[in-house]
Amino acid sequence: MVSEIPQAEKHIFQKFDVELANLVDKLLEMGGLVEKQLNDAINAFTEMDTELASAVIVNEEQVDEFDVEIDQLCVRLIAMRQPTASDLRLILGVGKSVQDLERIGDEADKIAQLTLQMSEEGSVSTSIGRSKIRYIAKYVSEMLRQVLDAYGRLDADLSLTIARKDKIVEEEQESATRELVTYMMEDPRSISTVMHVMWGLRSLERVGDHVENMAEHLIYTVKGVDVRHSTLKEMKKKIRKLAR
Amino acid sequence: MVSEIPQAEKHIFQKFDVELANLVDKLLEMGGLVEKQLNDAINAFTEMDTELASAVIVNEEQVDEFDVEIDQLCVRLIAMRQPTASDLRLILGVGKSVQDLERIGDEADKIAQLTLQMSEEGSVSTSIGRSKIRYIAKYVSEMLRQVLDAYGRLDADLSLTIARKDKIVEEEQESATRELVTYMMEDPRSISTVMHVMWGLRSLERVGDHVENMAEHLIYTVKGVDVRHSTLKEMKKKIRKLAR
Repeated sequence: MVSEIPQAEKHIFQKFDVELANLVDKLLEMGGLVEKQLNDAINAFTEMDTELASAVIVNEEQVDEFDVEIDQLCVRLIAMRQPTASDLRLILGVGKSVQDLERIGDEADKIAQLTLQMSEEGSVSTSIGRSKIRYIAKYVSEMLRQVLDAYGRLDADLSLTIARKDKIVEEEQESATRELVTYMMEDPRSISTVMHVMWGLRSLERVGDHVENMAEHLIYTVKGVDVRHSTLKEMKKKIRKLAR
Repeated sequence: MVSEIPQAEKHIFQKFDVELANLVDKLLEMGGLVEKQLNDAINAFTEMDTELASAVIVNEEQVDEFDVEIDQLCVRLIAMRQPTASDLRLILGVGKSVQDLERIGDEADKIAQLTLQMSEEGSVSTSIGRSKIRYIAKYVSEMLRQVLDAYGRLDADLSLTIARKDKIVEEEQESATRELVTYMMEDPRSISTVMHVMWGLRSLERVGDHVENMAEHLIYTVKGVDVRHSTLKEMKKKIRKLAR
């Protein structure tokens, strides 16, 4: 088949492939930065490291720059190459995932802001809920790493593992909230601090949601199935059917 | 200029214009449903109306169906019509706004779920923070109405009013949180109820964020300026420059 394509056209195709690969690379580069932002924000929060928190807030601008850059790249590729089918799906999928990555960056920024706020209010007792935060953060961080790896290999199967992990994060979140409420009941003076920890946990939950969205965009990109509103069970069924 | 276009080609253009108008109509139709979902969820929450809350949860499926349908329409339009410039921007802008509308639907669903949870736990004293919730909900709901109206007229100027309102919502949110913390401190038995009210308020804040995103997508669609990461002040400056 390939040999039937005239030389000039083949050249265009190859050039387009390189452009698509560059697009994915840009997404991964942005993903690496967001990952660092998230991990730094969590460390700043659990260690009450205001210097690190400030760094996260400053670096947020770089995330925004990536967002605009990749988005413009997507628009240019569509307008110039007029892609169809899987190429178009890839570009649109990257476009959507960029939005999710940007929102994860926002959540990292929020966690960093919380850290500064807590420090100003003199909350030093971050030992409340600290181990829970670390635990949930580890999960969420792993999910983000995995979805980025999966994008690098355009591997839709890994997305399932990620969707499963998101369920665990939600459950842990609920148990953590319950635990934190008991702290507040026992000592009303802890309420303000505990509230901040709760907002931090909420941010992590949102990060998990965004990673799951990215996994769904990837499945759509690779397999062309819209799984956004499927439950995990239906999702598995759909993928199994396609694998046959 | 128009008369120079051959008859057949003109026909294609006209057909494409109709398709684009239909796309925006679909977005507005989805917007109307999401608006109703949001208002119903808020009423259910403040009145502890579990029946209405259940209806919101059931209707969430319709929102998801719109999401998938409009997204597929966008992909089809790009693949078949290979639009460039402003037409492409419109399609991509609608595609992004659909995502935001869908998330607003998710928040309505969350508020409805909260209502059922509170009812199960026997919290009837929703008078706590009720007036604040109503007040903020009114603002957020108005913002959503306005952004949908602006989409209907492809009017980017209204977007500015919306961005300004979102700032007010954030401020009200902060003052409400402060007030709610005092309730918890005064009566630790109220903690669980107050937490639910806080989650409800958080959901409304997210709705405001999504409406602001939609306004930004609209400005980008109409004016071709990326305002996503501009502050309100910079945004105004950019628009003023374009108006000259």
